[in-house]
Amino acid sequence: MIVYHTIERKRDGEELSPEEIAAFFGAYAEERLPDYQMAAFLMAVYFRGLSRRELAALVDVMLHSGVVVDLTSVPGVKVDKHSTGGVGDKVSLVLAPLVASLGVPVPMMAGRGLGHTGGTLDKLESIPGFRTDLTLDEFRAQLERIGCAIMGQSAEIVPLDRRLYALRDVTGTVESIPLIASSIMSKKLAEGADALVLDIKRGSGAFLPELDRALELAETMVGIGAEHGREVVALLTAMDRPLGYAVGNALEAEEAILALQGEGPEDLREVTLALATEMLVLAGVATDAAAARAAAAGALDDGRALRCMEHVIEAQGGNPAVLEDPAILPQAPVQRVFTSPRDGTVTTVEPRAIGEAAVALGAGRTALGAPIDPAVGFHITAEPGDRVAAGEPLATVHARTEADAELGVAALARAVRISGEDADAAPLPLISHRVTTEGVEVWTARP
Amino acid sequence: MIVYHTIERKRDGEELSPEEIAAFFGAYAEERLPDYQMAAFLMAVYFRGLSRRELAALVDVMLHSGVVVDLTSVPGVKVDKHSTGGVGDKVSLVLAPLVASLGVPVPMMAGRGLGHTGGTLDKLESIPGFRTDLTLDEFRAQLERIGCAIMGQSAEIVPLDRRLYALRDVTGTVESIPLIASSIMSKKLAEGADALVLDIKRGSGAFLPELDRALELAETMVGIGAEHGREVVALLTAMDRPLGYAVGNALEAEEAILALQGEGPEDLREVTLALATEMLVLAGVATDAAAARAAAAGALDDGRALRCMEHVIEAQGGNPAVLEDPAILPQAPVQRVFTSPRDGTVTTVEPRAIGEAAVALGAGRTALGAPIDPAVGFHITAEPGDRVAAGEPLATVHARTEADAELGVAALARAVRISGEDADAAPLPLISHRVTTEGVEVWTARP
Repeated sequence: MIVYHTIERKRDGEELSPEEIAAFFGAYAEERLPDYQMAAFLMAVYFRGLSRRELAALVDVMLHSGVVVDLTSVPGVKVDKHSTGGVGDKVSLVLAPLVASLGVPVPMMAGRGLGHTGGTLDKLESIPGFRTDLTLDEFRAQLERIGCAIMGQSAEIVPLDRRLYALRDVTGTVESIPLIASSIMSKKLAEGADALVLDIKRGSGAFLPELDRALELAETMVGIGAEHGREVVALLTAMDRPLGYAVGNALEAEEAILALQGEGPEDLREVTLALATEMLVLAGVATDAAAARAAAAGALDDGRALRCMEHVIEAQGGNPAVLEDPAILPQAPVQRVFTSPRDGTVTTVEPRAIGEAAVALGAGRTALGAPIDPAVGFHITAEPGDRVAAGEPLATVHARTEADAELGVAALARAVRISGEDADAAPLPLISHRVTTEGVEVWTARP
Repeated sequence: MIVYHTIERKRDGEELSPEEIAAFFGAYAEERLPDYQMAAFLMAVYFRGLSRRELAALVDVMLHSGVVVDLTSVPGVKVDKHSTGGVGDKVSLVLAPLVASLGVPVPMMAGRGLGHTGGTLDKLESIPGFRTDLTLDEFRAQLERIGCAIMGQSAEIVPLDRRLYALRDVTGTVESIPLIASSIMSKKLAEGADALVLDIKRGSGAFLPELDRALELAETMVGIGAEHGREVVALLTAMDRPLGYAVGNALEAEEAILALQGEGPEDLREVTLALATEMLVLAGVATDAAAARAAAAGALDDGRALRCMEHVIEAQGGNPAVLEDPAILPQAPVQRVFTSPRDGTVTTVEPRAIGEAAVALGAGRTALGAPIDPAVGFHITAEPGDRVAAGEPLATVHARTEADAELGVAALARAVRISGEDADAAPLPLISHRVTTEGVEVWTARP
């Protein structure tokens, strides 16, 4: 292989052979190919994409760059879920125990906050004592025992992705659909689940705001799954406003507990049930979507999902009393209410501004490995379409200091837009599309 | 500056400010920005190009990354020439002394062979004793004394280009018009000439074979010159066949000497006179193109150009007797004549195949700094359009060994195509376009 010929061929839009992809990325994995050649190649991929065949070859190299977890000792069809990330997205905290409570093992390897979006690990770790640094053996044993385990991505899994991601992060090559898809899917394939449900966010707070790009990502990931013999179903969900009310780690954990008690914001419950429905059908434990949805709603309402969460918290070292008394969660010293500046209609609750403000308050990281403050964030009850009166409370800022609370209020003033007239808010449908190997369907609420 | 934001902005087709360009390349020049970020940026430039303003800023950073030569001590308007490189292109060896013999100082910094194309320095060094590693002081002093000096590019000049070029070479980012243009022009601007004539090759043996790309390069370089207050004129010349008969260093030096004696192949003389005409007009020593051309032809025919070459060879340590007795030049031990396999018309003499074969014989390098054999190469008298008879000599291979001579003959058999029928050869016009700040004109032979 002459490395720069491979780069040139990709640059010129030619299709590389699987052997060429394997040689190129294999050389990088073995540190025989320098970062600068990979960086140029990745930028060429940004512009030229990857064919289905190239993508399959890349996923294969990635997958086999580390440990491929064997979960055959865990009986049943194991189903995982992945979200492309959003603001207020605490779905995994509800979904994983919910689905597991219905007899489907959920082996979940989750991530930390990235950019303006939060991460499942950070949210779980706001529960006192909860640890996410399980070993693969602990993970497998917990799955066998209680059917659900949530850990951080093991360093043994797809080490090549770690290096590629770090390089993409500083070379302007993150936002490439085949690179995003291969990064996510190689990890998910290595983690040992049999099937996968994807929550692909769209809208201004999403990683890929545009519908066509979100659909392309969904189709690409479903295609990779099919190439590797895993069923994958993707739902496109709205991220033009935060999901639920809470943004910030402990606040979101508290809201997830409410949802596990059959309460909490309607949109959170709806997205959770839709994803649970897909997972239950994929696992073969429900005869159809209607039965699956009914079972899932039942498990939220009768406490089965909550009990499973109790087992997960106990198994991972957390204090399960949090499920009865959320005040055990860290609390921010300063709370400040944000009120509507006028009568009118809420037209927008801009999630990216909220997410960035939450990071600024301390809920996320601005440098790798930096500590976060689990207590800070926002609780925003205003939703697009709400009629509001001047002075009406719309949100609460949870902050470390008065000065931070001021910043939070200023961010809310920018993010929550209120039209003085009787304006139309046109939020995206909460769930808009469903993507499978059969193709794309426009979402219609399941019966 | 957040480096990856700059990369992303270029990737997304936004225009960077001159300050941003200066900060980005400045950081690279100071080794505060790693190769992998520059590689990704260069690939984004490959796809997105550079605006005129971005290009001016880049040339400015490049130019000032090293020494800018001051030639004000040399009286007169100093004019240099640059060629984008071809096979058999020995024009500089004739042109520089020719123009200097008419009172125009020619400060020439030339290059070595690159890929399948030869280089002026290698050709000059085939003259026994000739040295091209002048210091800048020697260069300036020689210019003051005899009006012409030809040296290798000083390491002090545009050191940033050296690093960028090495990176582009291995990252598939060589063939970018703004990057090529900024690389050439920053060096030419740093070398201290007041005006510049460009010979932009087109056709299968050229770096950029396509007319539209060659024209774009010409216009880009003329534009950079204008931004920096230098007059630049570009001629587009044919590289769909070798220029002249000789390909190989000593063979080309010999042919250049013939041209300096008013003899040699017609196409070499014609391109030389056309470029000389532009240089003389730019320098203001001729009232118009017709007068310039007549003066140049006169200086070739009456020995003035040859005498100037004698002074250059003497000044740079070479043996000037070579001008009387070309047998002083290195001679290859094996010569093999290539004859026409059939009656017919020569339709093609493919320059790239010839150039690559010359490198294979030892005339060029396959690794940086490798030694070359000045004696080897080709002498090809067949030209597209020639009617030839079976068995008629068309070319001679000059080789180190019989085996090499075989290789050379095989290369000629591939490169020299002869149609059995009374075919039309449609070679490109020798000179096809002239590009100035006024725009592009289709070339019509000067009166």
